[in-house]
Parts: sequence; C-alpha cells; structure tokens
Amino acid sequence: MTDAVTLIQAKRDGCRLHDDEIRWLFDAYARNEVADEQMSALLMAIYFQGLDAKELRTWTAAMIDSGDRLDLSSLTRPTVDKHSTGGVGDKVSLILAPLVAACGAAVPQLSGRGLGHTGGTLDKLEAIPGFRSSLSPQETVDTLRKAGCVIAAAGAGLAPADRRLYALRDVTGTVESIPLIASSIMSKKIAEGTAALVLDVKVGTGAFMKDQARARELAQTMVALGNEHQVTTKALLTSMDTPLGRAVGNAVEVEESVQALQGNGPDDLMEVTYALAERMLTLAGITDQDPREAIADGRAYAVYQQMIRAQGGDPDARLPEPEYKQDALIADRDGWLTRLDALQVGVAAWRLGAGRERKEDPVSAAAGIICLVKPGQKVTRGQPILELRTDEKPRFGIAIQALDGAATISDQPPPRSAPLVIEHIG
Amino acid sequence: MTDAVTLIQAKRDGCRLHDDEIRWLFDAYARNEVADEQMSALLMAIYFQGLDAKELRTWTAAMIDSGDRLDLSSLTRPTVDKHSTGGVGDKVSLILAPLVAACGAAVPQLSGRGLGHTGGTLDKLEAIPGFRSSLSPQETVDTLRKAGCVIAAAGAGLAPADRRLYALRDVTGTVESIPLIASSIMSKKIAEGTAALVLDVKVGTGAFMKDQARARELAQTMVALGNEHQVTTKALLTSMDTPLGRAVGNAVEVEESVQALQGNGPDDLMEVTYALAERMLTLAGITDQDPREAIADGRAYAVYQQMIRAQGGDPDARLPEPEYKQDALIADRDGWLTRLDALQVGVAAWRLGAGRERKEDPVSAAAGIICLVKPGQKVTRGQPILELRTDEKPRFGIAIQALDGAATISDQPPPRSAPLVIEHIG
Repeated sequence: MTDAVTLIQAKRDGCRLHDDEIRWLFDAYARNEVADEQMSALLMAIYFQGLDAKELRTWTAAMIDSGDRLDLSSLTRPTVDKHSTGGVGDKVSLILAPLVAACGAAVPQLSGRGLGHTGGTLDKLEAIPGFRSSLSPQETVDTLRKAGCVIAAAGAGLAPADRRLYALRDVTGTVESIPLIASSIMSKKIAEGTAALVLDVKVGTGAFMKDQARARELAQTMVALGNEHQVTTKALLTSMDTPLGRAVGNAVEVEESVQALQGNGPDDLMEVTYALAERMLTLAGITDQDPREAIADGRAYAVYQQMIRAQGGDPDARLPEPEYKQDALIADRDGWLTRLDALQVGVAAWRLGAGRERKEDPVSAAAGIICLVKPGQKVTRGQPILELRTDEKPRFGIAIQALDGAATISDQPPPRSAPLVIEHIG
Repeated sequence: MTDAVTLIQAKRDGCRLHDDEIRWLFDAYARNEVADEQMSALLMAIYFQGLDAKELRTWTAAMIDSGDRLDLSSLTRPTVDKHSTGGVGDKVSLILAPLVAACGAAVPQLSGRGLGHTGGTLDKLEAIPGFRSSLSPQETVDTLRKAGCVIAAAGAGLAPADRRLYALRDVTGTVESIPLIASSIMSKKIAEGTAALVLDVKVGTGAFMKDQARARELAQTMVALGNEHQVTTKALLTSMDTPLGRAVGNAVEVEESVQALQGNGPDDLMEVTYALAERMLTLAGITDQDPREAIADGRAYAVYQQMIRAQGGDPDARLPEPEYKQDALIADRDGWLTRLDALQVGVAAWRLGAGRERKEDPVSAAAGIICLVKPGQKVTRGQPILELRTDEKPRFGIAIQALDGAATISDQPPPRSAPLVIEHIG
C-alpha cells in the first residue's frame, strides 16, 4: 500500500503516479483518510508537474467511478452533447440543444452554474417562470425522450469527487491547471452518458484561456480523454474577445435565444451555433439534416418550447424586467467601434447582479447588459454603446467602473472580422 | 486587504509576496481564517518557487512574532548556541554545551525531539533517570545561570507558528524546501534569545541534505537570516556519511558523551566537537580558552554534571540496559572496512526502538547500535561490525533488513580520511 505523503512527494519530484496509487488516492480521499490539506498540496504539485496521458486517464476514471453514470441506453436516437468552457453572452446551448434535437439527435445537456464573469446556462433558463433545472435521473431521461433534449443540473450523483475537488481547487489557487480542468469537465460529461461530444473551447479576453496555445492544449487533452473513455469527442476553438450576440445576462439571453430560434439571431451567435450543430450532427451520424432549415421552418423553436414545458417552464411567459436601465459607454466621438472587451462587459454584467461571487449566492434574472453597438459598426458622438440593467441602482456605479476603457472607437473601420471558429481539433 | 487565494496564486506564478501580505497571512492563519488546505497549497507553491531573501526575512520574523522570545538579558556571560541539522550518532550537543560553558560562555540550547532516522538530543538525555527536558522559561534561565548551559525543549510559547507549520509540512510533502527549513530552524533559535549561533549543517548519506551544494545553500540562507535578526551566525558543513563516534541510540550516546567529556572520546566525534567549540568561543568573544584543556582538566565534565543535576537528573545513575543484544554485519572476508553507511545504521537504530515514527511515539532509552568497527579499521572474516540492542526481540529482524549492504570490506585500506569539517560559511 501507499500513503498520501509518498504520492505527494512522488508527483512533486516529477514522477508518474501509478494507476493503483491514483485509485487508492480517490478511495482514501472519499473515506477522509487523505485530508484536504494533503489533496491541496498534491493539486499544487500537479499544477507544476502536470499529469501525463496515462495518469490523466486514470485520474478521470477515478472521478467518474466516484459516482453513477446516467444510463441513456433506452434512447433510440443517437446521443450527442456540447460543452463550452464559458464565455460572455454565450447562450449557444439554449439554441443548440433544441436545434440538434430537431435534427434527430438526443442532447443530454447537464450543465453547471455560472461563477465569476461567465454566465451559467442554468441561471439563464431559470429566468423563465416555472423552469426547473434540478431533475432526477428518471426525469432527465423522460425529458430527453419527450423533447429530444434536456438542459439540467448535473446531479450530486455524477462524479461527486469532482464536486469536492473543484471546491478545494477554488480556494487553493489550483484552478488553472490543464489536466485538472480537463478531468473536471470530462468526468462529468462522460458520467452523463453521452455517446458523442463537441467541445467549444473559448479563447480570448473573455475566456478562461486567454492564450491560443493553452486553449489548444486544453482542447487536445479533453478530446483525447473523451475518446479514451469511448465518448467520440471533437473540439472547436472559438474566439471570445467580444460578447457573443448582443445580450449578456439571464433573461436578456433567453430573449435573444428565442429570437435566434425564430430565425432572428445575430450573425456572430449563429456562426458559432451552426458550426457546433454541424459538428454534433456529424458525430451523431446524421447527414441528411440542415440546421438552418430546422430554424427556418420552426422545428427547432418547437423543440425548445417542448423542452421548457417538460421542465416545468412556460415558454410564453413574460420574463422578469429590471427595475432600472441606464446607458453606458457613451461615444465621445464619431467613428467605428473596433473593440468591445468581453471580459469587462462580463464583469460589469456580473456586478449588475447577473452573476455570482460565491456558489451559494443568488443571481438576478433581470440584470444584464445589451450591446447596442457591436464591433465593426459605426457610432456617432453621444451615442451609447451599452444599456445596463439592474434591480439595485447602486450597482450601476461599480459596473461602470468595470467598463473603463472597454471600448475603442477609431477613425477607420476595422478590417473584415476573422471567422469566430479558429480551429477544429480532433 | 488581501486574501489567501490571491497570495497562493501570486507565489504560484513566481511573484514576490509583500511584507504586509506575509504578516496578514500569519495573522489570518493564527485566527483560522486561512485554512490548512490553503496553507499547504501555498507551502507547495513555495517549494517550487522559493522565497527570496526579503520574503524569507519577513516570513521568519512573522514566525518569531507569533510567540514569545526568551529574555536572556539578565545573564552576565556572553550567550552562544549551536544547532545541528541532524545526523546519525550526533551526540555533539551533550559534550559541546558543557564544554563551551566551562570556557566561560552561556549556552542556551533549546532542542527538538528526533523524528525518523536521526536521533534527538532530548531523547538521549531523557535516558538519564530523573532528567527533565521540559522547563519553564524561568527554570531555563535559572539553569543557565547555575550551570552555564541548559539543554531543554523549546517551549510551546516559542515560535508557535513554526510548530503548526512543521506539522502541516510533515503530512503534505513540503518538508524539503530550503527557505521553509531555514525559517523553521532559525525562528526557534532567534526566539530562544541567543546572541550568537554556530550551525552544524550535515551533508552526506545520513544527513537531511545528501548534496553539498544544497547543504551550502541551506547554510548560507540560515547564516543570512540569523545575521539579519541580530544573531551573529556562522556555519560549518560537516560530513555525515558514517555514524559519528561508535554509539547510535539514546543511553549508548549518553555513555559515549560522558566518556568524551572524561577525555576518552573517539577522534571523529572530538574533531567535530572541537571545531564547533572553537567557532562558538570566537563568536562569544572568548579568546583565552582552549577547549581541549577544559576537557583534560575535568571542568567540562563538572559542568555537565551540574547541568544534569539542575535539570533533575542523576549523572551517576546507571543507564537503562537493553533486554537483548545481537551482533550484526558479520565480516564475510578479511580486509578493511571502507564504508559503513550512516543512513542505514540510523534507520536500523530507529527500527530497534531508538527513534520514533510519529511525534507522539515513545522511544526506547536502551535500544541502539554500537559500531564495533569504524571505517578505516581492519576486520577479520567472522568479526561482527555492529552490536544491535533492543527491548523487543522481533525488532532485530527488521533492523537487519535495513542494514543490507550497509558495509563495504576491501582488500586495500581506504585512503587517509578527509577532514570531517568540509567548509566554513559566514
């Protein structure tokens, strides 16, 4: 047998942890025989020394085996899911899940909540009166069977070791490690039972990964992990330098998603959505469907309504309105908007109440930001670039602080914007 | 103000921690606002990123300020102490403290207990019937005034932050970090109130530092820390490839120390003892005393007896005898003993009961090893090299396992042995 100090020292000194050592570690941690202070020291050693492919496979398997796997074998449709590493205004899941379901796949999207400046899919959907994101495994499968898709919270039974490790990483400065991020995401996605998975790895100022090389490494690591665990996995690197679409928040993003499902989505949002949809359909083996048609003929929106109703929500209900609205980032000159920083807009929306500081905090459904002007468009001196929304007036001040220098106005129009899909991986 | 995660991330990313951040950290840790799992992650980040001289000075000062300092200002003699990083058969303190006191200095030696394969000075002295190593600050000063020296446990009031950090490092694989080792040793020695300090930094198979460059770095770091805190500090690097003297254990080392104080010490032990004594006397400003004379004329032994009596012990009492003795490492040929490994002999003595696995374990006073032959001496086929001593017969087996390959016998005598004092630092 081994012990925690031996494993910590081995990893610290750059040695590979053996399969039985990793299995022992997770078992002993579950029994509290390995203490949190030992696990956090090991996580920091992993931050510096990494985990190789073999270690990471076993590490991820141990996290999956710490809980249950969702059994989707009763479904007749091919299953395929998407995971995004998180961006500002990233409401793609709300459109994509019904869209891909409308094309014939089953989309079992189990999501997390937002933390920090990137919103959470569940927080957005919970702006819809009656919507329930906490479903039992049976309700999850039933909704999938009924609507073709489900967007719900990953239950406590899926990869509970990840839940505990993530909370520990959050307070010990060990979040930003590629193998730890990859195993955290993939353990939940593999436990969720999907047969195929497309990863949307965001890169840019508003993304977790600011740097393309690191984003690529994360994507490659996750693609390898998925395929090793019999989940056919591909990834797209997509740009996250400016908010996706115009809406950033909860209710406002639901509204924009509904418009997109009704055929009125902004170009950038639809570009990413269609790229992911095509990739998902290919992995599901569905080759005779065009997602653009499924939007145009209303099928995707119908699936959305079905899913919302199956989860207790009223898709036709009025969404919460904010108490206060205020313009911000007023153009000080005529010109072209050439930059609108995703991180700053995300932080401002968070401060308006759309996001949470700690995982137990509530979020405001109505708070958020509308981007009145998008990069590439003309502005006139005195024209507002953003509209801020909040339930608590004092929040305007701290949001505006966060927006200092978030926009650039130039005399020349920006060059034609680069494609949002930077790279296909896997 | 700052928070733990920000400090951990800063150190992880190679940034320098500011003085007020380090002060905040220790205050918040004392109030349990920084959790053990956060401190252990930070310690691992320090293992990788280090602490620079300025950070280390503040880190050490914060540990000192977490408790009291012993006030030795009432003493008329100059104070000077020694600290050894620990070796096998290293009973030097038992001889050195009375010897330097006999030459006119006051030696306030506050020690720790042994852990692992190196023995602890207090464990050795506690083999003497009645000897008390736990003294109040007043008793410590009284013994110093009466005998000129004292060897006692560093009380709970001295650098309590170090006590807590050390326990945490011990279970989180963060012991082997030069700044953390240096601050741990020096915070206690500075809090102890000595005006001058000589460090015996051991290097070799039986030492904590196997490598001369690392030992030198540790010595230089500690010398700088002491001088920055107004303790005049020098260091010797000394060799620890084979046990010092012939006795390894508790009672057996007391016996050998008494013989040394009576003028019958083995050459290697006296070589290190005199080198340290000379250095200590120089730092204390005592230039008219020859430690060899203080041994020869019985003054050092008289001080030893006084100190033992002042601490409740009977220097003339019979020391505990082991239940069992057994020869080990029987020479399989005629030749010269050219190597007797310090680490293996240390581990074997530990397994015989002389050392402890965990800090709460008791130690056996009588257990230990006598080196019947020292490297450089001739052996005859069938001659035992070691005598093992224990109270529990089954321990012989595990001790003998630890000794496999511990000795080398050659046809040729070894070259004249190198001086044990490798280098003077500071």
